[in-house]
Amino acid sequence: MIQTILWKPEGVVMIDQTRLPLEEIYVTCQSYQEVADAIRTMVIRGAPAIGVAAAMGVAIGVQQADAAGLDAQFEAICAELASTRPTAVNLFWGIDRMKRLYASLRHLSHREITERLVAEAILVCEEDIEINKAIGRHGAPLVPDNSTILTHCNAGALATAGYGTALGVVRAAVEAGKTIDVFSDETRPFLQGARLTVWELQHDGIPATLITDNMAGHFLHSGRIGCVIVGADRIAANGDVANKIGTYGVAVLAKENNVPFYVAAPVSTLDLTLPDGTHIPIEERASAEVTHIQGVRMAPEGTVVRNPAFDVTPNRYVTAIISERGVARAPFTESLRELAAKRGSL
Amino acid sequence: MIQTILWKPEGVVMIDQTRLPLEEIYVTCQSYQEVADAIRTMVIRGAPAIGVAAAMGVAIGVQQADAAGLDAQFEAICAELASTRPTAVNLFWGIDRMKRLYASLRHLSHREITERLVAEAILVCEEDIEINKAIGRHGAPLVPDNSTILTHCNAGALATAGYGTALGVVRAAVEAGKTIDVFSDETRPFLQGARLTVWELQHDGIPATLITDNMAGHFLHSGRIGCVIVGADRIAANGDVANKIGTYGVAVLAKENNVPFYVAAPVSTLDLTLPDGTHIPIEERASAEVTHIQGVRMAPEGTVVRNPAFDVTPNRYVTAIISERGVARAPFTESLRELAAKRGSL
Repeated sequence: MIQTILWKPEGVVMIDQTRLPLEEIYVTCQSYQEVADAIRTMVIRGAPAIGVAAAMGVAIGVQQADAAGLDAQFEAICAELASTRPTAVNLFWGIDRMKRLYASLRHLSHREITERLVAEAILVCEEDIEINKAIGRHGAPLVPDNSTILTHCNAGALATAGYGTALGVVRAAVEAGKTIDVFSDETRPFLQGARLTVWELQHDGIPATLITDNMAGHFLHSGRIGCVIVGADRIAANGDVANKIGTYGVAVLAKENNVPFYVAAPVSTLDLTLPDGTHIPIEERASAEVTHIQGVRMAPEGTVVRNPAFDVTPNRYVTAIISERGVARAPFTESLRELAAKRGSL
Repeated sequence: MIQTILWKPEGVVMIDQTRLPLEEIYVTCQSYQEVADAIRTMVIRGAPAIGVAAAMGVAIGVQQADAAGLDAQFEAICAELASTRPTAVNLFWGIDRMKRLYASLRHLSHREITERLVAEAILVCEEDIEINKAIGRHGAPLVPDNSTILTHCNAGALATAGYGTALGVVRAAVEAGKTIDVFSDETRPFLQGARLTVWELQHDGIPATLITDNMAGHFLHSGRIGCVIVGADRIAANGDVANKIGTYGVAVLAKENNVPFYVAAPVSTLDLTLPDGTHIPIEERASAEVTHIQGVRMAPEGTVVRNPAFDVTPNRYVTAIISERGVARAPFTESLRELAAKRGSL
């Protein structure tokens, strides 16, 4: 199984997702600042994986802090990690989980606090894999047999601690004996589909076909695609879904062609504090991601760029949201509230 | 003004569109085979430009043919040029125009035939610029003032003999005093938008913003886009439009967000022999265009790819088709037949 992120005595070890698939290089972050940089520069990406990285970042930060004035240092660690990327709510979920635990441990010694936070971060990582397997179990029955699944970006093992959300559903469907293959949008500008999804599926022997993002409509219209499954970076209370830029377009094209559009995500991706997707902050990234590809300039000097990293898909395009606690359908305000209330039911 | 293609005594001179924008290199094709290669490898691309190149290819082929057995050589020249790319009907239109002329010249000497065919090819080139200016005049009133125009691929000066079809409408709107700017889809895999459209608009001082293809939906949904204008490679009798892959997706997203979707193309792009777009042959190009960018590998070794170069936009998504003879609206079967019948009215 692909190991995205791992706690080791020497630090937080991550596979460098900026180098895949040409090079399989593991980096070791030895401070919370290095973890923050890894999130910011997308050495690690994918909402659930970012949640795990944030928890581990807090743990390594506390481990290396001075025993004196720990509260203030803890706040600084959390603030630095929270500043890395704005859209994926799992980042804040991971930090908040560590904050709640820290608040309950303040009577303990620095060493004891560190041990508990490290154990918690490892637990967050291990739980994420179990969550994804549960998402797979709930999602697999929705996948039509003998069909092609279209996915966008990488919501796979590399976007999580392992197994994946959208690709977890794919894996579970394959494990259930279904004959399926995957069409992967390349997902500009960062090419998560071309670089990560295809690599991951090759690893598992699941047939994958790479297309450019602008081909999705053509193949949805052709009748070739049985369903779309994507991940999510944040889901508002009404079921509006923030996910990788281009998801909205795929969703509209799926609906136009009567192809089911599924979102696979853990409950930690829900943000029930936001009534709808218009309140989700959308990260705008550097122009060079668009003007250059792997360091090679494509567009002329002086090109003006817009580079929103995410978009919001209104709930009316979402057939269902697949979580570790079950499948939510419209009206999502009710079904998502129910999922969120099923605490501890994983 | 940007010179896409030019007849010179030493051969057919083209700006190499595979090298733009990083290098402005002109290549000289000294035989019809070199012209065919230039079309095939996309040194020159864009439906109207391909039509001009085909006409010049026929002319240079006849110029270099033996006087003996000219008919058979003429057939071979036309067949070779016709085999280069299947979708853009302008290619066949250009060849057919030369064939009709050749048929009327067979009583003349080889030298006289050559002179007439060369003159005709130069005329095809000059006429194309006039046609595009007329498209611009008809289209400019449709462009909302103080708005952003979204375009896909490059339907500009570089896709034609000069001035452009979709970008011809943009230029005419600017010349008419409208305050507009352009959002350009980068247009994977060949990056015509990033490499050619942005470059061309910079040349003319028209504000341009580059986005990846999968951002088009986001900006159409945001209310930022006043209208979409694209070119076409072939338009069936019912108004279904074959154009660069991704056009269908943009059209669906435009309609979903109540943004007008305009197609700008010369009458030579009409193929009234085809009742609808399902009959248009769609070229599938090499996998390496998708797995590699500017020679740099992106996807893993062994990646399976689909690479259709075009898609078909059903007529229900097309607000209007802007030609040099006027603007056609639904029902297109009637309006396009009327346009085609307005012979000589440019």
